[in-house]
Amino acid sequence: MDSLKSIQHIISIKDFNRQQIVDILELAIRFENLRDDRLKGCVLGTLFFEPSTRTRLSFEAAMLQLGGKVLGFADASVSSAKKGESLADGIRVSSSYVDILVLRHPLDGAARLASEHSSVPVINGGDGANQHPTQTFLDLYTITKSHPELLKGEPLKVAMLGDLRYGRTVHSLIRALTHFNVSFRLISPESLKLPDTYIDFLDRENIEYDACQKIDDALEDVDVLYATRIQEERFPDPVEYNRVKKAYHLTPDTLKGVREGFQLLHPLPRIQEISPKVDALPQAAYFGQASNGVPVRKALLSLLLGKI
Amino acid sequence: MDSLKSIQHIISIKDFNRQQIVDILELAIRFENLRDDRLKGCVLGTLFFEPSTRTRLSFEAAMLQLGGKVLGFADASVSSAKKGESLADGIRVSSSYVDILVLRHPLDGAARLASEHSSVPVINGGDGANQHPTQTFLDLYTITKSHPELLKGEPLKVAMLGDLRYGRTVHSLIRALTHFNVSFRLISPESLKLPDTYIDFLDRENIEYDACQKIDDALEDVDVLYATRIQEERFPDPVEYNRVKKAYHLTPDTLKGVREGFQLLHPLPRIQEISPKVDALPQAAYFGQASNGVPVRKALLSLLLGKI
Amino acid sequence: MDSLKSIQHIISIKDFNRQQIVDILELAIRFENLRDDRLKGCVLGTLFFEPSTRTRLSFEAAMLQLGGKVLGFADASVSSAKKGESLADGIRVSSSYVDILVLRHPLDGAARLASEHSSVPVINGGDGANQHPTQTFLDLYTITKSHPELLKGEPLKVAMLGDLRYGRTVHSLIRALTHFNVSFRLISPESLKLPDTYIDFLDRENIEYDACQKIDDALEDVDVLYATRIQEERFPDPVEYNRVKKAYHLTPDTLKGVREGFQLLHPLPRIQEISPKVDALPQAAYFGQASNGVPVRKALLSLLLGKI
Repeated sequence: MDSLKSIQHIISIKDFNRQQIVDILELAIRFENLRDDRLKGCVLGTLFFEPSTRTRLSFEAAMLQLGGKVLGFADASVSSAKKGESLADGIRVSSSYVDILVLRHPLDGAARLASEHSSVPVINGGDGANQHPTQTFLDLYTITKSHPELLKGEPLKVAMLGDLRYGRTVHSLIRALTHFNVSFRLISPESLKLPDTYIDFLDRENIEYDACQKIDDALEDVDVLYATRIQEERFPDPVEYNRVKKAYHLTPDTLKGVREGFQLLHPLPRIQEISPKVDALPQAAYFGQASNGVPVRKALLSLLLGKI
Repeated sequence: MDSLKSIQHIISIKDFNRQQIVDILELAIRFENLRDDRLKGCVLGTLFFEPSTRTRLSFEAAMLQLGGKVLGFADASVSSAKKGESLADGIRVSSSYVDILVLRHPLDGAARLASEHSSVPVINGGDGANQHPTQTFLDLYTITKSHPELLKGEPLKVAMLGDLRYGRTVHSLIRALTHFNVSFRLISPESLKLPDTYIDFLDRENIEYDACQKIDDALEDVDVLYATRIQEERFPDPVEYNRVKKAYHLTPDTLKGVREGFQLLHPLPRIQEISPKVDALPQAAYFGQASNGVPVRKALLSLLLGKI
Repeated sequence: MDSLKSIQHIISIKDFNRQQIVDILELAIRFENLRDDRLKGCVLGTLFFEPSTRTRLSFEAAMLQLGGKVLGFADASVSSAKKGESLADGIRVSSSYVDILVLRHPLDGAARLASEHSSVPVINGGDGANQHPTQTFLDLYTITKSHPELLKGEPLKVAMLGDLRYGRTVHSLIRALTHFNVSFRLISPESLKLPDTYIDFLDRENIEYDACQKIDDALEDVDVLYATRIQEERFPDPVEYNRVKKAYHLTPDTLKGVREGFQLLHPLPRIQEISPKVDALPQAAYFGQASNGVPVRKALLSLLLGKI
């Protein structure tokens, strides 16, 4: 775990090299179902300028299950920001009350800025369309729990499905996976395809990928399918939205003939992308993925607080 | 306490038989003013899709006073439900973070649905116009603390006052009390009288009751008066509302000549139904009733967490 | 600390005599950076009918760092008040759930009223334009940490800057400081000058003061400058607001030539009153001031809970 010694904040998945990612995933295993008092006396501040149940509650669960305590807000409306206070000032003050901060903020770059003004470690709980690194760690953790061979250099084929244009989780996960022996299939409607900057990145890194618009026949050589929510507001034309919504609706039929060990992931909330009939199938990994947020966040909190 | 072994969730007062109710009330006595660490390491999730100070805060107090911890939300606006997530999905995820859940939800049946998707025990903290079983337990607890003879089969006369049509607490309490030797007086304006389905229930169970519209002379043979809030929005005509509001306003005069041991209960908040001048009278039991929420909820949390 | 034995609530700075103020400031020193379990088993209720990040979070931090626990609400919208419940009723119920209450409320006098209906100690976390005594204690604490000679009767010159008319913190601090050997300089625009009632008070108490409208040349004989936020909504005319905003903008230049040991305080949030360029100067005491909220509130919570 020597690679982790220099880590002071968790701001972007881009800040982590291969060894650090591997070490964090291995650290998280130790925290599976662990309850102890290692964070007794430590206080986490949860500053959620934008609501997020899943991220906030799993950070709080992680802290409380390790004996720590939590304070903060779930909603910008109760913060001083609405009086016009700068984020920098808010962070300077809040960080004097707690031992570690998790920040969720609507603006790109907010977490980095916060880390520069905080007297305690800062974890990015999502900043605008930019980064959400703990989500990426739990996505990776979910994949490598079922596919541990990935960490040993074995190849894995990952399909990304849905909104590849705006999906923050997709962008971060692609970037993190390129540290490993991964090839991609990019499945999206034309209007939501992966931005050129990420395509250029894949080309530069010599990562194999192909792209298509239909799910049919696109899953048989795939190990992991990462589906995302398609938001109506991304479509100027409701007719087009309805066509896409229908075409990207996953059912038990869609998953017929997939590989042994195939995993269907989704960052949740899912709206209509996955039929509830899929939930009972062995391939449905998305609820386990959500619950993996707890051990991963326990590991990260303990790491930054010097308690591993 | 053998009768309680099979209880996994607290969803509806209808799920409890006489013996279970008696055992829960006796269990609650043990938790009066008790503070210990029996729930150390346990985390309660409070999912309040509708605000409720009293219910939420007393559950939190119960948990914290027994050494447990709490996370959750007080308000649907900070939950993923507003992104369109189904309750079932929300519960599957949240229940993976905690050891027990309390749910408050605007829709009838939400708690039952939640219990079917939760991996941990669920307590109904009120679902729409349907059920609020822990309120009923604390109402019963308040009555039997002053009238312990009720549990031994002695008769008790209970008057229900106010909004008997929409009052969720009234419906549940009537149902619970019919396990005992109780007769009812139903005092309400014509437009807010007890629905036929409950009248039929009383007839079927051979429970004695009478009904009237005026308070005058209606209290002298009564042991317990359960008053409820009359909400303006139930009346199409403001003149009618004002007439009723005035007719159902309880003062020290109203309580003159009541029986020894008479108790005035109210689920609170009271608006104009009870004059503050009543607060100091020995019959005023409503603040004690509210504080009884703590021992009752301590008992229920400990029961479901296997810590009694 | 005998002077503190009679203190049951913290409602107004006016309730404290010189000896009590001195003893509380000395008590707070003991709580600097202290973490222990002295408040284990105690529960603080935070009833914030108006949002306030800084006050709420620092009370919570104080409680949690001493082993206590917290419940409550950050926002009136989730309280029963919106159903029309009186504050007195809300307090009677809430106080039966916890060991101590902090109340923030938009109405003047709310905290005093609350203390009359509470079964546990009440701390005023700000009631309307009236009082915010724990802010005053942390302001005094910040001043006396740098100027301990004040407590021994040595003279100190304090300038008050900005909105002296509506500023609750200014009024309370002036009143508290008059227990010591202090002289004042009142710097404000004509429309925001200190109300006559406070001027009369200073005259009656034989406190030296002068008043002016400009900052230039007004700081050279001053030990402490207490700056406040100037709110646009106080000005009928936006042109006048912009003129004042510009005239009261503090920069490193403004602080040239101030005395040795000069402190610049501000209750925060600051908007445009102090340039961020000032933050790095040794005179900038406002962030330390905010963090002093924790030891001061630890001392007050421990005092009222009988744990000093």
